[in-house]
Formats: sequence, C-alpha cells, structure tokens
Amino acid sequence: MLNLIEKHRSFQGFQEVYNHHSKSNNCKMQFALYTPDKMKDIPVLFFLSGITCTEQNFIQKSGYQKFASENEIAIVVPDTSPRGDNIPNVEDIKLGKGAGFYMNAVKGIWSKNYNMYDYICEELFELINNNFDFSNTQIGIFGHSMGGGGAIQIALKNNKLFKSVSAFSPICSLHKSNFAKEACEKYLGKNNDLIDSYDPIFLMQNSDNLDQIKIDVGLNDNFLNDLYIDDFEKICIEKNQKLILNKHEGYDHGYYFIQSFIKDHLDFHTSILKK
Amino acid sequence: MLNLIEKHRSFQGFQEVYNHHSKSNNCKMQFALYTPDKMKDIPVLFFLSGITCTEQNFIQKSGYQKFASENEIAIVVPDTSPRGDNIPNVEDIKLGKGAGFYMNAVKGIWSKNYNMYDYICEELFELINNNFDFSNTQIGIFGHSMGGGGAIQIALKNNKLFKSVSAFSPICSLHKSNFAKEACEKYLGKNNDLIDSYDPIFLMQNSDNLDQIKIDVGLNDNFLNDLYIDDFEKICIEKNQKLILNKHEGYDHGYYFIQSFIKDHLDFHTSILKK
Repeated sequence: MLNLIEKHRSFQGFQEVYNHHSKSNNCKMQFALYTPDKMKDIPVLFFLSGITCTEQNFIQKSGYQKFASENEIAIVVPDTSPRGDNIPNVEDIKLGKGAGFYMNAVKGIWSKNYNMYDYICEELFELINNNFDFSNTQIGIFGHSMGGGGAIQIALKNNKLFKSVSAFSPICSLHKSNFAKEACEKYLGKNNDLIDSYDPIFLMQNSDNLDQIKIDVGLNDNFLNDLYIDDFEKICIEKNQKLILNKHEGYDHGYYFIQSFIKDHLDFHTSILKK
Repeated sequence: MLNLIEKHRSFQGFQEVYNHHSKSNNCKMQFALYTPDKMKDIPVLFFLSGITCTEQNFIQKSGYQKFASENEIAIVVPDTSPRGDNIPNVEDIKLGKGAGFYMNAVKGIWSKNYNMYDYICEELFELINNNFDFSNTQIGIFGHSMGGGGAIQIALKNNKLFKSVSAFSPICSLHKSNFAKEACEKYLGKNNDLIDSYDPIFLMQNSDNLDQIKIDVGLNDNFLNDLYIDDFEKICIEKNQKLILNKHEGYDHGYYFIQSFIKDHLDFHTSILKK
C-alpha cells in the first residue's frame, strides 16, 4: 500500500513523495517520484543517493525536474537506508542510517533491516511497475557517490532489468575506499566473496559488458582519491567496455556539481531508453 | 571586510557565500553570490527570500545558477534577518530571526539589529559595488513571498538604484496580511505611516510608476488569500502601471514552484538590464 505524503507541481509534472511498508527492510520506507504529465509508457530512471542523504536531497537540490519534464521520463528516488526509531544505527556516518550501501546485510543487528539491494532491485522495482503506468521495460539507473557505485553494481548484475546506467562521482572500490570499510565489515563480516558481489570493479571484471557506462566526476572533489574511478576505468579499457568518463576541472563532490551536469545524464538515459 | 566561507563551481561560474560585519544590523551577516565566469560589468540581481529562509534556501533549491550562468548575470542572495546568539528572537516564525521583513525596526528590543531595509539598500548594495567589478548601474531586484513584497517595496522607493523588479508570490499588503501583523506591531509599533512606508500597495499608489513589474503566483498556493496580489493588481490598473501577472494552475508556494519559473524571471531581468 502506497501512501502519498507530498505532491508539488514542478515544471510540466508532479514531484511526489510516498511511503509504504517495506518487506525487505522490515520498516516504513519513503521514496520520491517525479511524473511528467505524459506518463503512460514513458521510461523510468532510478536515482540512488549518497551517504547521509534521504530521498529529499536529490529532489530539492539537483534541479533534475526541468529535464525529466522535457524528456518525458519518470524518476524514482529511494531513501539510502532503512529508517525509524527501531532501526539500528551508530554515530559513524558511513554506517547505519543514511549509509545502506545498496547491499543486503548478513551480520548481527544489521541483517534484519539493512537489505537495500533487495529493496531496490526487487521490492521498489515491482512496486513502481505495479502501481504506475510507466514502461515496464525501458528502465535505467544512476546515482551519486555511494549511490553511483550502487547504480553500477546493480546494473552489472541486472542488465535485463536496467537498460542504462550512469554515475556522478561513484565509489568504485568497496575493497579500497574508506567510505565502504565499515559497511563491508559490519554488514558483510569482511567476507571477500560477499564484498566482491557488490564491488563495481570486481563486477566489471566478471560480468558481461554493458552497452555503455557514463561517469562524471569533478577534479576539485575532496574525496577523489577515495573513489577509485581510475581503477574502474582501467578495467573497462581491459575489457573493452565502452565508458564515457568526463573529468571536470574545478567541480567538487556536492550538488552544485550534480546540478551542473544533471541535464547531460537525463539526456544520456533518455537517448538509450527511448531508442 | 568580506570573508569567503563557501565556494563551489556551478555551471560556468561559482556559487559563493560570504560573511561580514554589518553596521546596519550590528551583527555578522551572511550572503550568497553567484558569479558567472565573465563577471566584468555584467548586471547584478538581488534576490530577497521568504520567512524562515537563510541565504541557503534559494541557492540550494531554485536551480537559478544555470540561467544566471547562461544570461551572464550576477545574483546576490542576502539572509532574511540579523543572526547570532545575541540577536532578539521569539518562537513565532513571523517575527525575529528569519523574518526581518526588509524594514528598519524602531521599537524596543528589535531596533538595534532589525534594520534589513538599510542593510539591503545601503550597506549590502555598496558592499557589492565596492568589492566586485559588476556593473554599478544595471541592477535589479526580485524575491519570494516576504521577499517578493520586499523587492517591490524597495524598487518603488529606489527606482534609480534598482532598474528591474519581479516577484514570486509576494506579500503585497502589510496592513492586511497575517504574515506581517507581528512585524508591523513589534518592529514598527503599529504606526500606520511607518507601515505605509514599507507597504507595496500604498507605495504603488503613491510613487512614480516603474517601467514594468512581473509577478508569478501559483493558484494552489495555500497562502494565496493572505498575499493580496489582486489588490495590488487593482492599483496597478488604476495607475496604469504595467504589470505582468501570471497565475499558474496547480503550483504551490514553495521552491518547486520557484524552480519551474526561475528561468522566466532571469530572462525578464536580463532583457531589461542588458538593454
């Protein structure tokens, strides 16, 4: 059961926010949805946000609605973790609420609720298909930072479900990035096979190539050395994976960077999904 | 002395935030500034925000940077009131911090710091002129809600300083609007002459006509009846003041409305200021 909790006219469409009970995460989850006025059979694009974000950051700060409206594409923006008073959490921003890492946790207090992989790829995916008249085949995924890595991870394992993929400043190595250290330890118990199963670089090495992958990153990004995008690029070159990697002088890791290139990403997905 | 406290690359320009000591308000004030890469002699536009806002709301949520960059126009976004631990405040969102109403308070605890009229029209105006190489003649002003009324008020009294004016969902009547009741009572001591001196409708009735005024408002705005835009329109018609008033079906009072029409406002000001 979907409950509509926000609805705002935005460009030629509506910015909405829903909540619902999530079976995967055993809690109430919230997601945002932008629907252009023409909504029947249009492509759908999932945006996965970065650490500390809820569904609100992207919808308030990226300015994507103008281009979703013009391109006639629906955008789904999930939260980044389970939420609620009963959900385990810690002080560290890299673990717990706001840092689900698009994994299924298997360890300790985390495993009951931290199942963001199943939540995105199965539960939310089906919820959107079952409740709206969008296309159920022309579906893409993109994201930022933790969510950029998540989008690549999910696309590489689900290329029948997600037909296009792109990322802003993605965390490409779960094994090496300090951002992912705690998640790999606490959610996955440092199990290397499990970490591999969510690692963009390992998956790129060991999956079928995708049609193409688009990545944008700012060269004034404080976290640049912790993203391992160059390692990801190396594997793409080795595997002959088409990668459109744009490095932008002066831009940082935040939403002022994302807003500057959001149109390019929506155009990229639209061109693939409307082919 | 200006201190740079934020600087982000955004489109072909920079989103910056500065602070400085304000003589008018006797406290430290913060303002935001967007500068396109080409900044010499370009027009400048001041944006006045609504109740509860700081300089951050507009710069994070309106998506204006794309159009400021494309139109090559600098945008100054002040805070909406004095700030700091020593600044008087109350629980009511319509009074105190976040609700300066672009007036000079004359009463009680408020008069020392709540001098937003002088702050905008004299202090910040001069600060921008003295510290940046923008045009010092091609300057406009616009705003939202409390700041929309503020922009009209300021433009009507300072048409030599501000050459263009527009507003989103402006509060047009200080005498009638519930939003302004507390401010008129506490800052101005219910002095009708003083209220008139900041009242867009009174000022429209009693000032020289401006070249043109642009107003946009959503018809799904919860506060529509408390804005008195129709009263303002009536006076404009009586006085033969050119008013471009657009009422938009479905849009509300918030930033999803502003983002949908921000391009129109920047195009409007640019066309006047670059004439």
